[in-house]
Amino acid sequence: MPMLPPGINDQVFSGTLNRFRDVVGADWVFSTDEDVALYRDAFSILWGEPEERVASAAVAPADVEQVQGIVRICNETGVPVFPISTGKNLAYGGSAPNMSGTVILDLKRMNRILEVDDSRHYALVEPGVSYFDLYSHIQENELKVWLDCPDPGWGSLVGNALDLGIGYTTWPFRDHFGAHSGMEVVLPDGELMRTGMGSMPGSVSWQDYRYGFGPQIDGLFAQGSCGVVTKMGFWLMPEPEAYLRGYVAVPRRRDFIPLVEQVNYLENLSLVGHVRYGSPLGGTQFRPPLLNALQENPFPPDEQLNAIARQVNLPFWRVELQFYGSSEGVRANWQYAQRRIGSAIPEATFEEGEAYTFPLTAEQIEAEEHKVALGIPNMAIWEFISRDGRRPVVFDGHMDFSCVIPRSGEEFLRAQEVFHEATRDLNTRGMLPFGPFTLIQSSHPRNFLYLAILPTSRTDSAINRNTREIASRLIDVAAENGWGLYRATTAFQDKVMGTYSFNDHALRKFHERIKDAIDPNGIIAPGRGGVWPERYRSQREDNA
Amino acid sequence: MPMLPPGINDQVFSGTLNRFRDVVGADWVFSTDEDVALYRDAFSILWGEPEERVASAAVAPADVEQVQGIVRICNETGVPVFPISTGKNLAYGGSAPNMSGTVILDLKRMNRILEVDDSRHYALVEPGVSYFDLYSHIQENELKVWLDCPDPGWGSLVGNALDLGIGYTTWPFRDHFGAHSGMEVVLPDGELMRTGMGSMPGSVSWQDYRYGFGPQIDGLFAQGSCGVVTKMGFWLMPEPEAYLRGYVAVPRRRDFIPLVEQVNYLENLSLVGHVRYGSPLGGTQFRPPLLNALQENPFPPDEQLNAIARQVNLPFWRVELQFYGSSEGVRANWQYAQRRIGSAIPEATFEEGEAYTFPLTAEQIEAEEHKVALGIPNMAIWEFISRDGRRPVVFDGHMDFSCVIPRSGEEFLRAQEVFHEATRDLNTRGMLPFGPFTLIQSSHPRNFLYLAILPTSRTDSAINRNTREIASRLIDVAAENGWGLYRATTAFQDKVMGTYSFNDHALRKFHERIKDAIDPNGIIAPGRGGVWPERYRSQREDNA
Repeated sequence: MPMLPPGINDQVFSGTLNRFRDVVGADWVFSTDEDVALYRDAFSILWGEPEERVASAAVAPADVEQVQGIVRICNETGVPVFPISTGKNLAYGGSAPNMSGTVILDLKRMNRILEVDDSRHYALVEPGVSYFDLYSHIQENELKVWLDCPDPGWGSLVGNALDLGIGYTTWPFRDHFGAHSGMEVVLPDGELMRTGMGSMPGSVSWQDYRYGFGPQIDGLFAQGSCGVVTKMGFWLMPEPEAYLRGYVAVPRRRDFIPLVEQVNYLENLSLVGHVRYGSPLGGTQFRPPLLNALQENPFPPDEQLNAIARQVNLPFWRVELQFYGSSEGVRANWQYAQRRIGSAIPEATFEEGEAYTFPLTAEQIEAEEHKVALGIPNMAIWEFISRDGRRPVVFDGHMDFSCVIPRSGEEFLRAQEVFHEATRDLNTRGMLPFGPFTLIQSSHPRNFLYLAILPTSRTDSAINRNTREIASRLIDVAAENGWGLYRATTAFQDKVMGTYSFNDHALRKFHERIKDAIDPNGIIAPGRGGVWPERYRSQREDNA
Repeated sequence: MPMLPPGINDQVFSGTLNRFRDVVGADWVFSTDEDVALYRDAFSILWGEPEERVASAAVAPADVEQVQGIVRICNETGVPVFPISTGKNLAYGGSAPNMSGTVILDLKRMNRILEVDDSRHYALVEPGVSYFDLYSHIQENELKVWLDCPDPGWGSLVGNALDLGIGYTTWPFRDHFGAHSGMEVVLPDGELMRTGMGSMPGSVSWQDYRYGFGPQIDGLFAQGSCGVVTKMGFWLMPEPEAYLRGYVAVPRRRDFIPLVEQVNYLENLSLVGHVRYGSPLGGTQFRPPLLNALQENPFPPDEQLNAIARQVNLPFWRVELQFYGSSEGVRANWQYAQRRIGSAIPEATFEEGEAYTFPLTAEQIEAEEHKVALGIPNMAIWEFISRDGRRPVVFDGHMDFSCVIPRSGEEFLRAQEVFHEATRDLNTRGMLPFGPFTLIQSSHPRNFLYLAILPTSRTDSAINRNTREIASRLIDVAAENGWGLYRATTAFQDKVMGTYSFNDHALRKFHERIKDAIDPNGIIAPGRGGVWPERYRSQREDNA
């Protein structure tokens, strides 16, 4: 027996599925236990527990009219649906809904690439189109445009952008929602709406100008539940002539502060693309002894850490700068970066890395370690995650603690110290405190993410319990310091939204007034982004 | 006697003003005819006519609490307010409301510069802060950041961004709304809300990450009426080391097509900043005879136009490319631009223009013709407009027909032909048909604006009548071709929103459902952006 949506009885539920079958055909309504199990979140932090967020069924429409038909039925019967695109939002809920019993509205069959323009540099796609799909289309048609991909390439452009996903090339493309232009949406009442210039019949500039006229509503559909996005436009990056990678290294922990300041300058002026920050001391060969020393101890003083770096003859930080442009331009910008950083940090050292002109040969693509930097979707991230030696716990999934902090070296160093202090007892749970080599993500245009990848398991519920407790504590500690998550797994969305509580949750109340006005029956993705329709508001887990 | 808001009687109105006086002090409520006249739209296309959109009074709060107090009173008495920042939105309604009788909520006293960070490159300001104000602050404190300004520098950063204004440096700063990060808003019920990271108490990254968590609602306040924005953050451009200007000229009208294609490439890859397109044949010395020949005639064939260019020995098109970056980088990018454009258009010629390093000397600033390209606010645009010889009608104001078309050479040439055809009879009204040298604006990131500046007058209502008829016709012709206005003077906002009518005005209906949910008494800016609250919906001029 499936877990039904709250307040929906068996008869109404099966009647709804039958009506779905009339719309999409019996083959495209999934209601057996086996079929529905495929929509479970493989990375669920509640796997197998009564609280796991599980769907009751799934329905896969072939086109916009079928989506409209489904949504209209939902309004009549009260059964809610949770739209997914390719369902690959792993670490953030996967293909499972926020509220158990919700029927998955699986848009994978709507996978048409409607337009790709390589002179105005955009694409218009349906939600089922993956990064791999669009990349293949571009290659087959020899179009001179690049994608900006998230780590795994199997996901949907639409789905990733709507969850405010990020990538690895350059600005503005790396902010996937920020680089969108125009949407088509089936509203909760079944009406079809287009945004921006697309709301003009016969428009010829839907992907050229994103604002159209009047208020801007596209954002309501990002981490939102005011409709089902059925088409979305994206600005694409023109294929550059050349690419150059340069490495900068600095010897001491606090060199990070001027380093970030200089790199911010370069990036905010669009002279470098995505910047990869890291510490060579974080490599597996050095970490275990360092981390052992840290167990239960307070964060070590800088001098102690700097001494370790000197001992092993490694720089404390290493930054990878990426230059996109012309052959002469990438060299000039790299030269400037060296001049500028060298003058701020005399001890900085520089090393030139890979240089390419495009298109790449098959051998070059094969050999390149960080393919997403060149707009090439791939699945290498899974290998990276599974070989990462930092986590002594063997796990088969993960939950990302993705915490926005200012793009300031000082603040990042402080965050390391704060989160280390907050995790000093982790050795009692078979894990290690976070220490001085935690991940820094700088995919966003203007902020750092302090990133902790916590294990989840489908065989050992103790691991999930552990992860839930740690994640919950980290969210609290972050909020106490004015830091917040940009994205979260479904089971933590209420808690995270609860930390954005300025003036007694004014923002959330605003969201919910809009939700109730646009979706009075609460049938689209109840709970998504921590926003609940009136009908299900009591479902909120208000832990914050 | 002031024109009162519809449905508000004298007693309620004067009672409301008295309560406003209790909140802000008697000095800051303006109700004499003389004072209220200062809020008239000096560029109104309805100047002095009964339909002119005029305020009934004005109130100028000093701080957020006073804004809240005013808004709460409005809810009780039903008197609507129209928020303005510095009131300089000339050509798009100025400081006057959409609906006559609305009280102006003048935010000019809220002019605090709350934060400017020149290492993370942002500012947080109140609505009364003008581009001049922020520029002075930056200069006085020797901060290494630039502004991106619209043409006249007296306007408000907040006001301009909220009307989706644009500027002249580089991407992403040129899209003023797109470069914002975080807002504080007084909602129609008087509650205070912050968006993005600002909705976390104690947040330290309000201007670093704009999305926060959950749905994105900032856009509702752009050309919108869901609240009164009281603070807004903006990303600023780091002061570049160098600037270089390069000119490209091509001989024939249709060379515009490959030229735009190449320049799109450069700009969409962030290798050039704002591109200024123009035709040297459009200069005053050549235009009158050319335009005379065009009167009443169909658009001339390309060959005839090309022949004129050859005759006077001028290129047909000239493009100004702007490079921002390092000394070596701007040279490298200019070299690449020449290489790339030269290979696509062998007849293209190139000329190097001004080159600067920063900061500029006072003499350099004085001598520079296009100061906004260097982030320097000024008022030179007024001189340009008044000396422009194309318009035989002497006028003291103007209305901008600002029409979004794709950034495609072909489409722009087609737009010239279409709009010329639509204006062939203008010579019977003391004006000239639009012809082949109309203005092209490329301030937006990805589209052209076809721009026609139509005269308005405070002394001759025939000029305004003419402009209304022409503008109305142009809006219709544009919509027939799939082109639409991005911004419009208040008296045309209903008509323009009416052209964005996909699926029986689904978008506008959506806006109005939100409006009614958030502002049930319809007290904030009724009619702004073509969106009316239920209470005043009958005021809509549905001409479309």
